[in-house]
Amino acid sequence: MSGPEPSAGPGFLERVRSSFAAQGLMRHLGAELLLVEPGRCTITMPFRPELAQQDGFFHAGALTSIADSAAGYAAFTLMPADARVLTVELKINLLAPARGERAIARGEVVRAGRTLTVTRAEVVVVRSGEEVAVALMQATMMALRPGGA
Amino acid sequence: MSGPEPSAGPGFLERVRSSFAAQGLMRHLGAELLLVEPGRCTITMPFRPELAQQDGFFHAGALTSIADSAAGYAAFTLMPADARVLTVELKINLLAPARGERAIARGEVVRAGRTLTVTRAEVVVVRSGEEVAVALMQATMMALRPGGA
Amino acid sequence: MSGPEPSAGPGFLERVRSSFAAQGLMRHLGAELLLVEPGRCTITMPFRPELAQQDGFFHAGALTSIADSAAGYAAFTLMPADARVLTVELKINLLAPARGERAIARGEVVRAGRTLTVTRAEVVVVRSGEEVAVALMQATMMALRPGGA
Amino acid sequence: MSGPEPSAGPGFLERVRSSFAAQGLMRHLGAELLLVEPGRCTITMPFRPELAQQDGFFHAGALTSIADSAAGYAAFTLMPADARVLTVELKINLLAPARGERAIARGEVVRAGRTLTVTRAEVVVVRSGEEVAVALMQATMMALRPGGA
Repeated sequence: MSGPEPSAGPGFLERVRSSFAAQGLMRHLGAELLLVEPGRCTITMPFRPELAQQDGFFHAGALTSIADSAAGYAAFTLMPADARVLTVELKINLLAPARGERAIARGEVVRAGRTLTVTRAEVVVVRSGEEVAVALMQATMMALRPGGA
Repeated sequence: MSGPEPSAGPGFLERVRSSFAAQGLMRHLGAELLLVEPGRCTITMPFRPELAQQDGFFHAGALTSIADSAAGYAAFTLMPADARVLTVELKINLLAPARGERAIARGEVVRAGRTLTVTRAEVVVVRSGEEVAVALMQATMMALRPGGA
Repeated sequence: MSGPEPSAGPGFLERVRSSFAAQGLMRHLGAELLLVEPGRCTITMPFRPELAQQDGFFHAGALTSIADSAAGYAAFTLMPADARVLTVELKINLLAPARGERAIARGEVVRAGRTLTVTRAEVVVVRSGEEVAVALMQATMMALRPGGA
Repeated sequence: MSGPEPSAGPGFLERVRSSFAAQGLMRHLGAELLLVEPGRCTITMPFRPELAQQDGFFHAGALTSIADSAAGYAAFTLMPADARVLTVELKINLLAPARGERAIARGEVVRAGRTLTVTRAEVVVVRSGEEVAVALMQATMMALRPGGA
């Protein structure tokens, strides 16, 4: 990473919480914010049949949804206070069947730029008390500024 | 694409319908199968606040969920009758804010192999009666056979 | 695609040719510009052992190199005359062993925005006079403007 | 990661070296094997104008080529002795202009399966004696066994 490390401005925690609360999908999936730090965000989601694919495991779409939000909010913590965050693109590998009582997505910033932020997220499930890695994501987020691109 | 075009075996429509019905997430998102043909599958999902991100548009995770299922079932139509389908990985670009009354994901097979199938899906929203492209996905699906990899 | 279709400004052909000629890697790989149109660019590269992986086929890296340039220049044709083009990210699926006398990468713009352009490229090899699809790429390009982001 | 950690069999170093030596592209780009360990592989490549894009930095295609080989051989170290390795797909984010005297790609295995191995690679350039991260890749590799997929 070149240049000085970007830092989170005051109020980042409130901005993330308030934006997360406005995401109807997160509530619909039963997802909750677990941790928000500068450049990091963790989201958790208990298993329910409403989140399953055909074999009764977490659907890749449900895992991708919390991974996307975790990575997006990790990026958001480092953006100016008047910016909005948009997902430009994401790529996720499913590593193992996502059978477990709970999924946890940990997003983090790899490189924060003025316009684009590269992020990464790991998704694990908790199965019989142990974490099992089930997905790995790499994604690009964009800061949208008022009156700009 | 090299070699002869793979073809869908008898019963592919029933297999897709029955598998789709078993996906709790699709029902939870209000998604429906619109079309199933050899190598193609279309899924639609009306907008609801439960599917939104913080600005009130479709969340990238909701769009990715139906794109993943559409591409996965497109691949599934060409797999042997005893195979299950798994998403290996997916990559999706968000093209425009997904503001609309309905989202439609159209999945198709790019190349079907014995183990891996490369797929593509386009997602559009219907806004005031017109289709607007909002996402483009490229994904790899895997056929899992009984007793094998 | 929302909004009016972006169009190529005057001089786009010269700008692409001159930029391509400045890419040492394209010359080193023996790649040549075959076609440049608004939103499209095709690059071709004859096979040589210097481009091979361990089995004597085109190396994925060589195919990705011309796919990246083809997609990047497809995007570049629609950018303002004072912009430079950068690859933000790319994702490529290898579809089949790339055994052939020549590789051809066809890049095209999927959606051109003010800052980001989403592109796609298909790579084929010519084998015994027939085209065989060997790779499919989806990539994000960025316009860099003088004094801006 | 579930299950026991896969381990490299005897002779993995020789197999990687011999396969690498057979990659015409690596020699053509001036790339060299720097390190091979179970589940890890590092490749380095000094800058030359023959590897540049239009601004005189490393071309994304050159960086992707060594990242792909580094990740592929990282996967190869954990495969059975009679397997060949193929790149299924790769996704790479370019983090910063790749201006430097040398590029280094460090590939590692994220999860090794019987058929598919998920890998990651980081690419840095050395600029005035310091490492600058310039690319991050996530890729899927496949083991091809004699007489099977």
